[in-house]
Amino acid sequence: MSAKTFKTSLRVTWADTDAAGVVHFSNYFRFFERAEEEFYASLGFTFLDVRETGLWFPRVEACCEYKKPSRYNDLLEISVSVEELREKVLKLGFELTNKSSGDLIAVGHLVIVAVDKQAGKAAKIPSMIFEKLRPLAKQIL
Amino acid sequence: MSAKTFKTSLRVTWADTDAAGVVHFSNYFRFFERAEEEFYASLGFTFLDVRETGLWFPRVEACCEYKKPSRYNDLLEISVSVEELREKVLKLGFELTNKSSGDLIAVGHLVIVAVDKQAGKAAKIPSMIFEKLRPLAKQIL
Amino acid sequence: MSAKTFKTSLRVTWADTDAAGVVHFSNYFRFFERAEEEFYASLGFTFLDVRETGLWFPRVEACCEYKKPSRYNDLLEISVSVEELREKVLKLGFELTNKSSGDLIAVGHLVIVAVDKQAGKAAKIPSMIFEKLRPLAKQIL
Amino acid sequence: MSAKTFKTSLRVTWADTDAAGVVHFSNYFRFFERAEEEFYASLGFTFLDVRETGLWFPRVEACCEYKKPSRYNDLLEISVSVEELREKVLKLGFELTNKSSGDLIAVGHLVIVAVDKQAGKAAKIPSMIFEKLRPLAKQIL
Repeated sequence: MSAKTFKTSLRVTWADTDAAGVVHFSNYFRFFERAEEEFYASLGFTFLDVRETGLWFPRVEACCEYKKPSRYNDLLEISVSVEELREKVLKLGFELTNKSSGDLIAVGHLVIVAVDKQAGKAAKIPSMIFEKLRPLAKQIL
Repeated sequence: MSAKTFKTSLRVTWADTDAAGVVHFSNYFRFFERAEEEFYASLGFTFLDVRETGLWFPRVEACCEYKKPSRYNDLLEISVSVEELREKVLKLGFELTNKSSGDLIAVGHLVIVAVDKQAGKAAKIPSMIFEKLRPLAKQIL
Repeated sequence: MSAKTFKTSLRVTWADTDAAGVVHFSNYFRFFERAEEEFYASLGFTFLDVRETGLWFPRVEACCEYKKPSRYNDLLEISVSVEELREKVLKLGFELTNKSSGDLIAVGHLVIVAVDKQAGKAAKIPSMIFEKLRPLAKQIL
Repeated sequence: MSAKTFKTSLRVTWADTDAAGVVHFSNYFRFFERAEEEFYASLGFTFLDVRETGLWFPRVEACCEYKKPSRYNDLLEISVSVEELREKVLKLGFELTNKSSGDLIAVGHLVIVAVDKQAGKAAKIPSMIFEKLRPLAKQIL
């Protein structure tokens, strides 16, 4: 991933695991969203700022490919990149690697739409946020 | 437990377990709340009815004693009883047993307060709900 | 979906929701897996039977498209179909609808590989399970 | 709390919240356990070290009192203290405060027993771990 990629890390907790001794597959989506939140914080805004503009950012698609399992106490690095930026839609890409082994654990993406809470319809991403995402976008459509 | 006890059951899913191969201790509280929701449904109301009266039912205390582990695919029976009923406070007791072995798995309680959403202060449990709980209460204070 | 589709239902609990008042997107994957577990039970086996053969069924891909939000207390119907069946790989498709409105809520899939726990390599799906899935498969590859 | 208290912090994520706009009460137990894990790490061991000695640390009791709600993006400070240390039993106390307001959010405890995985019976806490906890214990029984 390029220099435009945001990176953060997290440690796998006991509650993230399942009876196979590995992180439950659904939890990687929570890891993605947590990285998304930290990515936005690094740009100076939060979901609360989105909501104050009368919008919210529901996910319309979430996918993950699982490459290797991760386990309790593993330290994971998460990379976040802006795969696509459209007027009303944002696609974020995620890569998780095990920080000690360097193994690729999971690759995935979230497609997020700006939606007007009152009207329940897609709306433009607020320009304050769009302008912060623009320089990081691999594709602007 | 007496005839005044509401009973429901649930099957342990894979996502409920942790790397020790047993249900993660925090999930019993979700089981309690799910049983609480079904208990209310059996009385003819939901959290939504509570919220429509301008109140909500936050928990002020939650406790659980763990007696034996439960595992993936176990069928659990949950008993719900009204331990105490006060003007503004409700204490629900829970017992989980393994339906096939009869083993007691967990015992716990939730203390719930009716709170006015606007004022942020304790309020009377709506009489519609109070009257439904009253005949089931072990103690009315 | 065809007559070969397995159907089950579940009620959204309070713990499934997030601060937007809707089911958190990651929880649909838990709903998928719970439906998968009930699907297997309807065929007469569980993850435990898989594990007793020395295998497990890790997910290598999980995707979901979100069509409409679902909320606390909604009754959801989940359809499970066998999209593809290969010697070592199984792709299950899922559709969630709101039972009272009929609205399509989410569509997704899981790609599952049979893996030898000792060797850590893909292995043949046990024939007992393969034969139960075969008559339901839309594609056998 | 005294100088013997371990402190860590965490930021509330969107997935921690429920439809009331606050952290779901069950998640505080996950916060407690995460703080417990970091506390052990600060002493130089993990659950994995416990398991390598043939033991595990199941919880036999978990309680929490909720004082004020916490919300998405709140930064919480968690204090962990060793309330009681016995030969086979450990009681950890937890306090969560909102770092920006200073408000007390929740107070709770976990009672943990060292259990022999094979025998399924209570066993002595490994001396390596006991000696690390001893100087921090408010009560040694």
